[in-house]
Amino acid sequence: MTLLLTPDQSLTTLGAALRTTLDGSFARARAQGRAALPADNLLRDPTQTMPEARQWVLDRLRELVEHGPAADGVPHSAGELGSPQGQVVAFELLSHGDLSVTIKSGVQFGLFAGAVGNLGTEWHRDTYLERIRSLDILGCFAMTELGHGSDVQSLETTITFDPETDEFVVHTPVPAATKAYIGNAGLHGSMAVVFGQLVVSHQRHGVHAILVPIRDEAGRDLPGVTTADQGHKGGLVGVDNGTISFDQLRVPRRMLLDRYGGVDADGRYTSSIESPNRRFFTMVGTLVRGRVCISAGAGIAARRGISIATRYALKRRQFPAPGRSNGVLLLDYLTHQRRLLPLVARSYALGFAQNNLNELMVKVQGGAAHTDADQRELETWAAGLKSITTSFANSALQTCREACGGAGFMSENQLTALRSDVDIFATFEGDNTVLLQLVTKSLLGDYRQVWGELDRAGVVQATARAVGDSVMEWSGASVLLERLTSAARRQPDQLAMVDRSWQALMFTERERHSVESLARRMRAAAKSDGDHFEASNRLGDHVLFVARAYLERRVFDAFLTGVDGCADREARQVLERLLSLYALSSLDADRAWFVEHNRMSTARSKAIGEQLSSLCRELRPHALPLVEGLGIPEAWLGARLLES
Amino acid sequence: MTLLLTPDQSLTTLGAALRTTLDGSFARARAQGRAALPADNLLRDPTQTMPEARQWVLDRLRELVEHGPAADGVPHSAGELGSPQGQVVAFELLSHGDLSVTIKSGVQFGLFAGAVGNLGTEWHRDTYLERIRSLDILGCFAMTELGHGSDVQSLETTITFDPETDEFVVHTPVPAATKAYIGNAGLHGSMAVVFGQLVVSHQRHGVHAILVPIRDEAGRDLPGVTTADQGHKGGLVGVDNGTISFDQLRVPRRMLLDRYGGVDADGRYTSSIESPNRRFFTMVGTLVRGRVCISAGAGIAARRGISIATRYALKRRQFPAPGRSNGVLLLDYLTHQRRLLPLVARSYALGFAQNNLNELMVKVQGGAAHTDADQRELETWAAGLKSITTSFANSALQTCREACGGAGFMSENQLTALRSDVDIFATFEGDNTVLLQLVTKSLLGDYRQVWGELDRAGVVQATARAVGDSVMEWSGASVLLERLTSAARRQPDQLAMVDRSWQALMFTERERHSVESLARRMRAAAKSDGDHFEASNRLGDHVLFVARAYLERRVFDAFLTGVDGCADREARQVLERLLSLYALSSLDADRAWFVEHNRMSTARSKAIGEQLSSLCRELRPHALPLVEGLGIPEAWLGARLLES
Repeated sequence: MTLLLTPDQSLTTLGAALRTTLDGSFARARAQGRAALPADNLLRDPTQTMPEARQWVLDRLRELVEHGPAADGVPHSAGELGSPQGQVVAFELLSHGDLSVTIKSGVQFGLFAGAVGNLGTEWHRDTYLERIRSLDILGCFAMTELGHGSDVQSLETTITFDPETDEFVVHTPVPAATKAYIGNAGLHGSMAVVFGQLVVSHQRHGVHAILVPIRDEAGRDLPGVTTADQGHKGGLVGVDNGTISFDQLRVPRRMLLDRYGGVDADGRYTSSIESPNRRFFTMVGTLVRGRVCISAGAGIAARRGISIATRYALKRRQFPAPGRSNGVLLLDYLTHQRRLLPLVARSYALGFAQNNLNELMVKVQGGAAHTDADQRELETWAAGLKSITTSFANSALQTCREACGGAGFMSENQLTALRSDVDIFATFEGDNTVLLQLVTKSLLGDYRQVWGELDRAGVVQATARAVGDSVMEWSGASVLLERLTSAARRQPDQLAMVDRSWQALMFTERERHSVESLARRMRAAAKSDGDHFEASNRLGDHVLFVARAYLERRVFDAFLTGVDGCADREARQVLERLLSLYALSSLDADRAWFVEHNRMSTARSKAIGEQLSSLCRELRPHALPLVEGLGIPEAWLGARLLES
Repeated sequence: MTLLLTPDQSLTTLGAALRTTLDGSFARARAQGRAALPADNLLRDPTQTMPEARQWVLDRLRELVEHGPAADGVPHSAGELGSPQGQVVAFELLSHGDLSVTIKSGVQFGLFAGAVGNLGTEWHRDTYLERIRSLDILGCFAMTELGHGSDVQSLETTITFDPETDEFVVHTPVPAATKAYIGNAGLHGSMAVVFGQLVVSHQRHGVHAILVPIRDEAGRDLPGVTTADQGHKGGLVGVDNGTISFDQLRVPRRMLLDRYGGVDADGRYTSSIESPNRRFFTMVGTLVRGRVCISAGAGIAARRGISIATRYALKRRQFPAPGRSNGVLLLDYLTHQRRLLPLVARSYALGFAQNNLNELMVKVQGGAAHTDADQRELETWAAGLKSITTSFANSALQTCREACGGAGFMSENQLTALRSDVDIFATFEGDNTVLLQLVTKSLLGDYRQVWGELDRAGVVQATARAVGDSVMEWSGASVLLERLTSAARRQPDQLAMVDRSWQALMFTERERHSVESLARRMRAAAKSDGDHFEASNRLGDHVLFVARAYLERRVFDAFLTGVDGCADREARQVLERLLSLYALSSLDADRAWFVEHNRMSTARSKAIGEQLSSLCRELRPHALPLVEGLGIPEAWLGARLLES
């Protein structure tokens, strides 16, 4: 069934089964999306000048709104909820083509429409959403300032209420408050959602967002607005990023996106959320979809590169060898397998994790019942997966470029464009390092809560097993993972390294021990005299380790659950090995830690490398189906090196 | 004295002393070069179209030939030896600006003139060198073929002698023999040095090189020649790479670059080197200067990025903290220190190593007395340092881009251009993975030789210490390193981790043990029945490990020797810490290995991270002088983000 919906008629049976498994609960939506995407015009000519690229991208975006999925999931009006699933699947689909189009679409529909839809109220939604959907209005999401990137709470732009005229005055008080790196601000945007400090009757109420017009129909800056084009970038050349500053720009009161806080007709500030801090995080929390989409898009970009490099390695021969007088296929070199196959494994792992994240987002934002804890988990998971997926995409694409040698550097083979476009994914929608810190902060908060309760009940004094299980409960592990971990706890060293329960125990222990010891060190730092900043600053590396340990465990858990749901016997066998390749690669990267913390013997640690090589050899014959399973139709790769 | 020669009048005293130390025996040449470089036109406008970029690069190269160092060191005629030091210093200088210019210069002077000068005889040198120097002739180095990148011995282009007409016939027998990725072939080249299989009287004599005209004065392909433009690339957009194929192109006999083998007037093949294999490697060996230059250039590119990111981290504040209400300077975050300062340390380490490599090249190629072993060491060291320096440049520049956040992605801040231009350095002049394999192969050859002798003398049965010392002798360690290692051998665990002798022992042991165990496994593989390719293929990872262990030890040794020669007390103190930061970072990356092989206790292994943090904190106050010491004049960085 699914096969009929894809543009690839030539998949191997195994490839098709792998693809369906990896697509998971989104299999139908994704297959339909792939079948319907207008694919004639997927990739951009790299020789375009910047102005040509921007125009091409805008034209392509219009095409994808009219005949494609670009605006899928965006509500038309106040009455509609919109579809989070529709949006993320559309974003993934767009990521199969030129990423400037994807990002321009993300700016317009994810960020701009997202802010109007989530932070605005009925009037904003009814007045603007349809015009945003149709690209009648192109908009900016003006959050970042020159002086304030990651630190959104310190924004300096002011939004001051003037009761005399019933207007807001939007102002850039210092050059550092200039909005910067804003998509659509360089050229095409006619409105912007501007984030700034709300001031009512000389009182500050923290960061709020307001909708302002910035350009007239001829594309000129409106009075009080100064935009500037930030020009050429290291990638995404088709997106017009720019700066915006305001000189006492006046807009009517109703332009404030006042769902969580606004000014009533009497000029008084009102909000349903009392704590300014909580209000801020609630507002920012609604924008989580951007991170979910960026993560999903980076995952697809990595899959495109991995597909190109692996397919090339199945064609290209180099150096004759005994019994191989025509030269050895690149993928028959163990060193080449060790470069590419772990990327395939991690790509699947992150794909299953993305499914899990998408599902959580659909639950929280799709109108179903959900708790505050769900919302918090969504934010943490989105921040974390965005960080590790975009980092992975960057390093994987570089490896793929190098694995294709000189050919990989030719623009016609797509890898360098992918690589340079994905670069900034590591920074926008949250700097990856800052996001990892945020993950750990959130974990420690949850930890403190659960741990405090345990402590009162005296459970912390109980057996290691009870503590371990409680942590797992706290950290949202699946029942399957819990079961495996418990089973392994008795005699871990008796288990094979490819044994799922041993792997489960290692992933869990890395997370549990590192978060516990960090919590201890944090408590000590808080109690210390002297410079409090320095005391916690010293824990910087530990903070990042905890985030990674948590995220790797979650990714492992998602992969585990994904394989568990695979009904196809052959696909399942291959996925079992692939899961081991992912798991052991992750453990291998920290094997010093496991030995240092007595979780692994040196004999076992030393044997991981050989085990990874064995897994690569076992998976080598399935390389093509594995790449097919990644879901990128071969015809869409557009790499000349695969043609001959 | 040196200070007066630099364009930076504002260096700190410490910065100036560090710069002089890092410049080492090339301090005067480099300082003079920096003072004389025409620096008005260093960087290229990133919005140029590809044709504009190519023209700009050609114009700039002409400027740098007339008024700058581009052709420095290239001989004018047969009587001159040329200056290897002049060439590598010129290449470094050019690497301070647009890298397309650097590479176009490298193609012309390093590769094309290098082949004519090193493989040609008197007539070629007298006829062509001056015209190449003046850019009257722009030339190609046509080695790589579509089907044969790293595997040069398998080239399929034929150079067949026709005794009837006393000519050579250059021919492309199959599409895979098309010359590809050739600089100057896309547009500007009028001649090419073509590598192919020499055939005389139906007998093959292996790969030789011949000089052929490819385009007429109007830029049209000559009869028998077909060039094609390979168009847009992921970087180095100003270099015109292209393909060349030949259809029975005839050139006079004297065009063969016949220093190591040619055809005499009677139509007989003659060569001073009997073994075809040895002849091939002798010819290729003369071209080692290209690798030395690429390594040097990549080192400079990395320094430019590290200078930008570190200077930015000394200006940029983000997130307020207790006692830091204006925000914390990025470089005061330990996580940021841990990202950037190890790059500074490694950059110094590789810089000292590059000095060592340059000196060896000057010795071997500069007319002084030298042995075959020197030549072999030069080739191994050049291959290895090229590999690790270009890999470092790529990853360092990416880290620097990310460390500058969104600003790092704007082309005006230079990091993305550096990053995309340096990308291909990992592939050209030898794929980095293949080069590491070559290093290990060469080490095993030397090892076998020394070890064979030791074995006959019964020394292998002697104490570990004797064996260790012999290996050090074999592997070309400095006297200083030998002394330190011997001192540490007695009670290594009693030494501090910042103790130089402990570090020396660790670097030496990693190299010694890994090469010994590989040699054992290789012997076993050679004796095994079954598929010989698979038997050695399985050792792929071990092969790469050995190369890295050897190279890291050599880099450590060069850093050690460099610091030892530093007369300035304050600079020396800082460099001592920097050397520890490099050394412990290198050991940290393999700390699992050290524990697994009983070279390090788990307690010590576990403590390395804290030690790295301490070193970063201690070096933090010296960040600016350290960056000044990297030698890139601030005014040349051209990054807008440093202006405000």
